[in-house]
Amino acid sequence: MKPLLVLTTAAVLLARATAMTGVAPPGEPQYDAAGRMVFPADYRDWVFLSAGLNMSYTADPAMAGQDMFGNTFVPAAAYAAFKKTGTWPDKTVIVLENRGGTGKGSINKRGLFQTGDYMGAEAHVKDTARFKGGWGFFAFGAAGAPASEIPHSVACYGCHEQHAAADTTFVQFYPTLFPIAKQRGTLSQSYLAEAAAEAARK
Amino acid sequence: MKPLLVLTTAAVLLARATAMTGVAPPGEPQYDAAGRMVFPADYRDWVFLSAGLNMSYTADPAMAGQDMFGNTFVPAAAYAAFKKTGTWPDKTVIVLENRGGTGKGSINKRGLFQTGDYMGAEAHVKDTARFKGGWGFFAFGAAGAPASEIPHSVACYGCHEQHAAADTTFVQFYPTLFPIAKQRGTLSQSYLAEAAAEAARK
Repeated sequence: MKPLLVLTTAAVLLARATAMTGVAPPGEPQYDAAGRMVFPADYRDWVFLSAGLNMSYTADPAMAGQDMFGNTFVPAAAYAAFKKTGTWPDKTVIVLENRGGTGKGSINKRGLFQTGDYMGAEAHVKDTARFKGGWGFFAFGAAGAPASEIPHSVACYGCHEQHAAADTTFVQFYPTLFPIAKQRGTLSQSYLAEAAAEAARK
Repeated sequence: MKPLLVLTTAAVLLARATAMTGVAPPGEPQYDAAGRMVFPADYRDWVFLSAGLNMSYTADPAMAGQDMFGNTFVPAAAYAAFKKTGTWPDKTVIVLENRGGTGKGSINKRGLFQTGDYMGAEAHVKDTARFKGGWGFFAFGAAGAPASEIPHSVACYGCHEQHAAADTTFVQFYPTLFPIAKQRGTLSQSYLAEAAAEAARK
């Protein structure tokens, strides 16, 4: 067998095995019998999008008196699809992990590193058959118990729809994907108008 | 065919395809004819270890007048091996990506996010047949040209050997792996002595 044929056969067999097990493919959202989202515990094996420190979209600090990093992850298949198309496929799950930061430890003299102080995670899920507007938000505590969808009256939905660069996600803060959204012409009209206004003020 | 048999067959076929192509498996170090290391351009598809901001092991800032994040990545197979054993398998490549940070942009009001300002990367490579002490360091500029091994007289080697928590790597700054090294008893004697001295001073 030639390498390409061998690889194709392997891929077909893997797809068949996934269908046989009866659960959603790795990285796709899972819900329990009560309709709550199951915490995607393997998200640290996903592709890293970016990390921020103490970011806040309001004048209030994200976490007063404590440094907090935010690490963002997406499953490999969704990442590969975005790189091709500039937008997210259905069943994409984006996880934002909140984690403490400190400058004190070992031989570090300056700056901040991330610690074992895990502060829970948020998920932004594209499931067009399930959520109004196509996307749902979920917040998971440190214990990782299943979570109900955050109601659409909460500000995260409106803010993402109005300010996020592509497909209601903050791709302007994901440095490997932002140039792709630009190139593919998938930046939202509201984001483009906002960026133009920002540029005009400078 | 049963799912397990199908999966096993798929894995065997994938391994055979890798052997057929004649190049090192994905994630393992590649060298050119001159013995320089080829830049592992796909490192953003690897597993994320952690991110730091403006970290420095000396009193001097890492990058004066500019905020810089450091993102660390390792291939999935090496990450899985560390989770099992608490140490790195031969042919592990750890990449530290240096990337600019800013607080100004879009609707961000506080804190810092990472930008498109990519500032090159460093690699720490375990290749016991090739490097004195088992590990080599490489620095890649933004263009990603092949790099020669950094000479062993440079401080990075001694510092990692003396202060890094496990297998000459700074696992004390990788929050998902540090508990594993503790549990597996793979923390180095020099690190344990240093941590005990630090605890005694408090």
